[in-house]
Amino acid sequence: MYRPQIKVIDCTIRDGGLMNKSKFSVETVRNVYKAVCAAGVDIVELGYRNSKKMFSVDEYGLWRFCDEENLKKVVDGIKSDKTKIAVMQDAHKAVADDVLPKKESVVDVIRIATYVKDVDKAIKLANNATDKGYTATINIMAISQALERDLDEALQQIEAETKITACYIVDSFGALYSEDIDFFVDKYRKYLKNKEIGVHCHNHQQLGFANTIAGIIRGANYLDGTLYGLGRAAGNCPIELLISFLKNPKFDIRPLLDIITKEILPLAKEISWGYTIPYMITGTLNQHPEIAIKLMEMDDGASEKFEFRKLYEELTKEGED
Amino acid sequence: MYRPQIKVIDCTIRDGGLMNKSKFSVETVRNVYKAVCAAGVDIVELGYRNSKKMFSVDEYGLWRFCDEENLKKVVDGIKSDKTKIAVMQDAHKAVADDVLPKKESVVDVIRIATYVKDVDKAIKLANNATDKGYTATINIMAISQALERDLDEALQQIEAETKITACYIVDSFGALYSEDIDFFVDKYRKYLKNKEIGVHCHNHQQLGFANTIAGIIRGANYLDGTLYGLGRAAGNCPIELLISFLKNPKFDIRPLLDIITKEILPLAKEISWGYTIPYMITGTLNQHPEIAIKLMEMDDGASEKFEFRKLYEELTKEGED
Repeated sequence: MYRPQIKVIDCTIRDGGLMNKSKFSVETVRNVYKAVCAAGVDIVELGYRNSKKMFSVDEYGLWRFCDEENLKKVVDGIKSDKTKIAVMQDAHKAVADDVLPKKESVVDVIRIATYVKDVDKAIKLANNATDKGYTATINIMAISQALERDLDEALQQIEAETKITACYIVDSFGALYSEDIDFFVDKYRKYLKNKEIGVHCHNHQQLGFANTIAGIIRGANYLDGTLYGLGRAAGNCPIELLISFLKNPKFDIRPLLDIITKEILPLAKEISWGYTIPYMITGTLNQHPEIAIKLMEMDDGASEKFEFRKLYEELTKEGED
Repeated sequence: MYRPQIKVIDCTIRDGGLMNKSKFSVETVRNVYKAVCAAGVDIVELGYRNSKKMFSVDEYGLWRFCDEENLKKVVDGIKSDKTKIAVMQDAHKAVADDVLPKKESVVDVIRIATYVKDVDKAIKLANNATDKGYTATINIMAISQALERDLDEALQQIEAETKITACYIVDSFGALYSEDIDFFVDKYRKYLKNKEIGVHCHNHQQLGFANTIAGIIRGANYLDGTLYGLGRAAGNCPIELLISFLKNPKFDIRPLLDIITKEILPLAKEISWGYTIPYMITGTLNQHPEIAIKLMEMDDGASEKFEFRKLYEELTKEGED
């Protein structure tokens, strides 16, 4: 038994790109694209379409910008109509003019990532995308820190002012428990009458997959995952687990197993992601993982030299009254 | 808000011992014991009390047998009344006579691990333990493969014929989803009127912690975890996550963070546990992880040389009609 409305989105290259400045080779991205197409994944996100005025092209790799010519190198000869192509724009780091009219682009879906405070910018970019012929989503980041009154207002605006297909709950800090997912899905459902609800979960408390299931049970139909969980800090919901759970016969897990062997495990030598104690600490304390990422980068693979207690005490100390 | 009836059991040394033939140094076990006492963990399981007739003392380490003299070396000078000491007996690999009368032992709790088919042996050993003055539990392993009629009968027997404190749902294969936990807790509750329900989860699908939370929500009060998830195959529910979730002020997470730095992360150089694709495959297919453990042992740390597809196809191939 499966729910046919569910869409699975692979964001390996986009979220994983936060751990290597989006510096994947064209070959790797092409292989990932080919594999997720063969697996029947609904949408694949190949990176950001962020502004070259805000990110240096010398410092960041191709997939921070996703120029059409580079996307064409990825899909050339293997483009599948079943698997749509997405790119992400950060509401505060992207510009509308970087999005061409749909018929000049290989992109199908523009996903706008935003903090609650930037919702007006996000709506502008989302409308830019839908006006130009794309499907669009708005992905509300760091939702575990959103103030409820602000979030309520943002959702009302999104409902009234956009034509997006789905609005996401993004647990950027890996801080949510299943009961929180229930709470947010119910809230989204209350305000968003004609839009699907998405969940994008992080694994700081090893709940990335479990919270995605919680979202499914509560009615979310847009589900993000990444190959072997590759993504910022503790990473994401592993797409191989999600596909396996969903039981929709349109999916084939085997190409995902192949690409994990061929491309993702080798990346683990250069990029460090997955559950560690520093990420667990920031996750349980509902903090941005930045401080933990810095700690892990300082580490030469021997995490035991760090005193985790110190990090915990630093993050839990009381301010002066 | 927390539920005071909840008991947290650390089984790092016992379950982790399945990955190194229970060969931890006395110093390591002593340090783990000291840390979990300082953290306020309710029960610590220091290994098996299995039979020397069934396990070679040359091949297996001290914690497969937990002789009283060795347990005394662990607790000497640091014994805490708050943290009870448990050992496990396998129903089919242990004998009643190896359990001394309670007053001659430092052990408080005897946990009997059993497959459904061995429930009569388990009941005999559990009664041996309670008759001798111990608290006892029965932990039903591999429950994801139990036939329902057999399980129902076993639970009725356990209710009628024992004085155990708690009966466990043990997801040995890491195959259960939260809805399965709900199902089993409800079933246990139906038959076990005067006994607590326990959950012992494995992480083959990254659901060890999440399924433990599912158990809590459904009413389970005996919760197993291990430091940094150390345990068979993909490991267990990480106790640091569980303690952090529970919010009971009697717990202090900091000694757990210290011992993970000092003892557990260094063990990761010798023992390989945690989520990998082979374990994910056996978990999603509800299979014993043995074949995956063998694969991982053959691996020299470069898992990419394995073709995961082959394992998946091997385990999913249809038999001849």
